[in-house]
Amino acid sequence: MKAVILLSGGLDSSTVVYQALVDGYQAYAISFDYQQRHRQELQSALAIAKAAGVVEHQVISFDLRQWGGSALTDNSIDLPQGRDLEEMGQNIPITYVPARNTIFLSFALGYAESINAQRVYIGVNAVDYSGYPDCRPDYIQAMQEVFRLGTKQGREGNPINIHTPLINLKKTEIIQLGNKLGVPWELTWSCYAGGDVACGICDSCRLRLAAFAELGLQDPIPYAK
Amino acid sequence: MKAVILLSGGLDSSTVVYQALVDGYQAYAISFDYQQRHRQELQSALAIAKAAGVVEHQVISFDLRQWGGSALTDNSIDLPQGRDLEEMGQNIPITYVPARNTIFLSFALGYAESINAQRVYIGVNAVDYSGYPDCRPDYIQAMQEVFRLGTKQGREGNPINIHTPLINLKKTEIIQLGNKLGVPWELTWSCYAGGDVACGICDSCRLRLAAFAELGLQDPIPYAK
Repeated sequence: MKAVILLSGGLDSSTVVYQALVDGYQAYAISFDYQQRHRQELQSALAIAKAAGVVEHQVISFDLRQWGGSALTDNSIDLPQGRDLEEMGQNIPITYVPARNTIFLSFALGYAESINAQRVYIGVNAVDYSGYPDCRPDYIQAMQEVFRLGTKQGREGNPINIHTPLINLKKTEIIQLGNKLGVPWELTWSCYAGGDVACGICDSCRLRLAAFAELGLQDPIPYAK
Repeated sequence: MKAVILLSGGLDSSTVVYQALVDGYQAYAISFDYQQRHRQELQSALAIAKAAGVVEHQVISFDLRQWGGSALTDNSIDLPQGRDLEEMGQNIPITYVPARNTIFLSFALGYAESINAQRVYIGVNAVDYSGYPDCRPDYIQAMQEVFRLGTKQGREGNPINIHTPLINLKKTEIIQLGNKLGVPWELTWSCYAGGDVACGICDSCRLRLAAFAELGLQDPIPYAK
């Protein structure tokens, strides 16, 4: 059995790669170079794919700076810094990239169909201050219908299924799951900023640091602040 | 009012650009260089966008040869040639590119949201021997739900709507509509093969030629055969 796993190189998607393996799937990873501000996450994606022993790792390149619209693809928009977790959850943040998960899942669907995979795994998470519209269960259900109706496999009664093992987990629970699965956190990258070391103050760093702290654990990666 | 129009440079999408204009929209075209065998269609897309006077034309590049799976992205798979129209309609053809319209619509959605567009136009067609799963009304409805749930605009009650003005038209009716709208057919490109001139024998050429012939009209582009 084969599964395609969306792998950004962060905590969540890295955990999902290891989950797919214990679920008994041959893992095919897919990552995206969309000229995101934090492209160094791709180095983490490569390292995790290698550490986990995936069968194949596809990196798809395109340029979402062409229309910007997000702090992750337009350097003229400042990243939020130093926000507390309550603040993060109140609105759809400026780090939202229009249609990003839809684009990612579409490529994963094409890849999955071309290798006759049964599943696509994605590490979306609908709790813990994620304001993103394309991380919620109703959105995933809608994409599932697209997977069923938009492909040859689906029309032949054999749809590729979307699996979201983290969707209802808190960040602390994801870390606990990853610890159980042996995810090498030191290889992962979460920071939105483009620095050599994680900034420690963007939303993504703060969420990660808060979760490790709540568990009384040390995050093994270095931070600038 | 703004609309994003998926423009391949063929008869159908070119007609849709002109339809969007008469519908009163400012036209923003989007085309894709996915290393398709018939990349010269992009020259037609550029020419049509210019002739129609679109506000902006985005060309997004990525490489679907990475996993192949289609006669349009894998040169080792032969294109069907010389098939009659009945044959074409019986199965999903080998020119089917896994998840292609889903990928295209996803990018169109991101572009539309970044410019605050109200509509995305796509020239899909569910009649006339199109065996493609991602050209059918139920698929488009599923994508519409994704458009609604996967975006900030949609979540705020202002979804971007997918318009498919050609979905129930026969190829002959599309040509009649395009004639009424003044589409410059001489600028369009339909052939799937990679030659300098349209081959005249691939499914796409045969469907086009048959429609012009049925109307007693001359297709203004040159053909090799």
